[in-house]
Amino acid sequence: MRIHYFNRQSLDLLRIMLSYPVRNVLSRRLCVLKTSQCRIILALQHTKRQCSTSSSEDLDKLGISCSYGPLGMELRRNLLDQWWHSVTRSTAQVFGINTLSSSKDTATGGRGQLRIVETENVKRLLEQQELSKEQLIQNIQSLIQRSTSLRTNFLQGALEQFVPSLELVNRKLPFGLAETGLCFQPSDGSGCPAEVTQTSLVWFCSPRTSSQWLDHWTRHRLKWWRKFALSPSDFSSREVPEEEREEAASRGVRIIYSFPWGEEPLETLWSRGNTELLQTHKDVRSKLQCRDSRKSVPHVVSVTGNMDRGVLAFLSNSLQHLKKEESKQKLLQRKVLKLHPVLAPVKVALDIGRGATVELRQVCEGLLQEFMEAKISAWPGYLETLPVSMEQLNAKYDEMGVLFTVVISENTLESGLLQVRSRDTTIKETKHISEIKNFLSRYISAADNS
Amino acid sequence: MRIHYFNRQSLDLLRIMLSYPVRNVLSRRLCVLKTSQCRIILALQHTKRQCSTSSSEDLDKLGISCSYGPLGMELRRNLLDQWWHSVTRSTAQVFGINTLSSSKDTATGGRGQLRIVETENVKRLLEQQELSKEQLIQNIQSLIQRSTSLRTNFLQGALEQFVPSLELVNRKLPFGLAETGLCFQPSDGSGCPAEVTQTSLVWFCSPRTSSQWLDHWTRHRLKWWRKFALSPSDFSSREVPEEEREEAASRGVRIIYSFPWGEEPLETLWSRGNTELLQTHKDVRSKLQCRDSRKSVPHVVSVTGNMDRGVLAFLSNSLQHLKKEESKQKLLQRKVLKLHPVLAPVKVALDIGRGATVELRQVCEGLLQEFMEAKISAWPGYLETLPVSMEQLNAKYDEMGVLFTVVISENTLESGLLQVRSRDTTIKETKHISEIKNFLSRYISAADNS
Repeated sequence: MRIHYFNRQSLDLLRIMLSYPVRNVLSRRLCVLKTSQCRIILALQHTKRQCSTSSSEDLDKLGISCSYGPLGMELRRNLLDQWWHSVTRSTAQVFGINTLSSSKDTATGGRGQLRIVETENVKRLLEQQELSKEQLIQNIQSLIQRSTSLRTNFLQGALEQFVPSLELVNRKLPFGLAETGLCFQPSDGSGCPAEVTQTSLVWFCSPRTSSQWLDHWTRHRLKWWRKFALSPSDFSSREVPEEEREEAASRGVRIIYSFPWGEEPLETLWSRGNTELLQTHKDVRSKLQCRDSRKSVPHVVSVTGNMDRGVLAFLSNSLQHLKKEESKQKLLQRKVLKLHPVLAPVKVALDIGRGATVELRQVCEGLLQEFMEAKISAWPGYLETLPVSMEQLNAKYDEMGVLFTVVISENTLESGLLQVRSRDTTIKETKHISEIKNFLSRYISAADNS
Repeated sequence: MRIHYFNRQSLDLLRIMLSYPVRNVLSRRLCVLKTSQCRIILALQHTKRQCSTSSSEDLDKLGISCSYGPLGMELRRNLLDQWWHSVTRSTAQVFGINTLSSSKDTATGGRGQLRIVETENVKRLLEQQELSKEQLIQNIQSLIQRSTSLRTNFLQGALEQFVPSLELVNRKLPFGLAETGLCFQPSDGSGCPAEVTQTSLVWFCSPRTSSQWLDHWTRHRLKWWRKFALSPSDFSSREVPEEEREEAASRGVRIIYSFPWGEEPLETLWSRGNTELLQTHKDVRSKLQCRDSRKSVPHVVSVTGNMDRGVLAFLSNSLQHLKKEESKQKLLQRKVLKLHPVLAPVKVALDIGRGATVELRQVCEGLLQEFMEAKISAWPGYLETLPVSMEQLNAKYDEMGVLFTVVISENTLESGLLQVRSRDTTIKETKHISEIKNFLSRYISAADNS
């Protein structure tokens, strides 16, 4: 096992521990991100409780999932929103769906590996004294068989939704079904399955165009990942070698991120043919035929992403260590989480400088309300009652990735002017209080549409 | 068992089947909403596959979950977004969190009732020939004990996140933790657990203010539900009678919707004291004390909503049957799904009238792109190649709840003018193509801020 720190030098500042399972098929990560210095649980919280082990060494052998703190949760939320908009609001016809995470089917694709059982039912079964060992085994087997299974991906759900969706598009190809949410992954024997936040686009197209569509979506997805990156070249796409292909797939492409510790796939695209679609609908071809496909059954291109890993990639990509010269000739290191404006969990922090605290707070409250109505997420720094220097505050906000810090002071009460500091330039500007909301809105939407 | 139709007369148009379990504790619903006439799967799809029964009568005895089609999915998405904004962007300090849906803890609150087991592990266990019946029973018991359990609500997760969150607020009360997502509910013996889309706010406050906060959040929530209602009086709040209280709770309030078939709770608020919080943190009071609470452990107010039922409530509340006089003196019934503008899954439909199809479609494509960039969800009706009358189209869009229908015709190519029909007034107006996007944006945000 290897434990990697995102930043060995500043272990107390921002730390990512990553554990590798030896088998990489369903690789899982233990992600700990803490900025204990500024007391912000930035992204992911330790989930030792998930698999109660005493030593972190053991975690490697177990399935590990990530639990998010407030900032990490907002970051992932922003990322998922962006994914959703980019896929469902492209010119291509993509519909969102929401399928069940559990099902009675013991269908294909490993859906039967994880089962939900009710402890009550098992208990009742084990209490039946009169049963022989063979009968007991049989009863348990049938209990498991009848129990619902948890999904490991969204593919099966989308394949099932294909027929009802045909009505929406009047049997016209191509179209897609998108879904995001929780999937469960078996544990490779440890008994502790992992939870993954997945994104899924299942694209139905005519057989002769499936390879072109695979290329189209690869370009689309790579462009999307790079849009939010500080160094876009860390994101790349690569054809899956023949020997690593999934059974049903004729071609595959991976969108890869180069983490400091190696490459990992963020999204995987497969050209899957129509075998699974036919299987799901019990080979009733007539139900599946579409208008564009010359009476043949459509082919499927699947695009599956791991957004927990996506969050990690952007955190890793955004953290910058900048040398900074101090006035007293001291060389300090500035750590800035340069998350893309649309991804940053907090857009603006509101703080107060010198002046009558009560009045200044009232101004902040009003501004906070204004930001919230404009859906600009703001950090109420003015609520803080423990004294901190502006220097310390800026350091904390830079680590949190806060885009701008607004400081309200006595001057604001007199002239309406406030100070705005930018995370990326560290330049402090003076603005009028009436223009700050529009300034922020324009800044974020400009970054979104660039 | 009773099956209720939302509208018996137009069974083919919009149908809700509801099945009642006799015990109402964890009531579940089978919700079928289909507009087979206009071939739109409006909201919820039949989930017979979830529990394979031959007759719908049997469904009553089983746990039933809802699977959503594209429009229902968007509606629920909009509803969840609104809930999230109203709770996390109120002046109160509420942080979003994301906890795991499964955990190793066999803790309180029924978390241990549902377990995830891996079929492989059970199989391996049952294959051990040399075991006696007693050993087998013991091994199965320990397998179940060691397995992860699925959450039935978000309370436990939030209580666990309380301590790390204290760092965010510098141990200052009050603050809240919000979460939305999937929870699982035991099946009352059928072996088929249900999935529920829950919303949860867990509010931590000083002991002496907990009852006031319960009232505050009750007003807040009721106001929110009513904001989106066509007839707000169908939503009400009611104190939970003492005999129905949860064990830990000293007071409870339910937000109730009067469905045509009776009342059902949408959101439940409890003033829970601090027993569960103490239990979760093994009675280590020093960890839990906050600055505002005079060295005492904070009290908890929980607000838990069922958003699948919320979707149903708004569908039920929004469907109107209007008498309409036709030019030929025929009296027709117009069925309109008058969903609130921010909830409506589709804001605008784009269709083409008379004229050169290729050019008109190009105009539509451009407009669609413009709408999507402005995050106005649009329906590409112009892609439809089967001929339908404008009358039929309007009827279909009214049933879908589409706010406006824009028709591009020859006239648009010449003068830039297009026709906009309103769902709510049925009035057709002529507008210039350059002003349509802003008109829609303003209309939706006006409804949002009213």
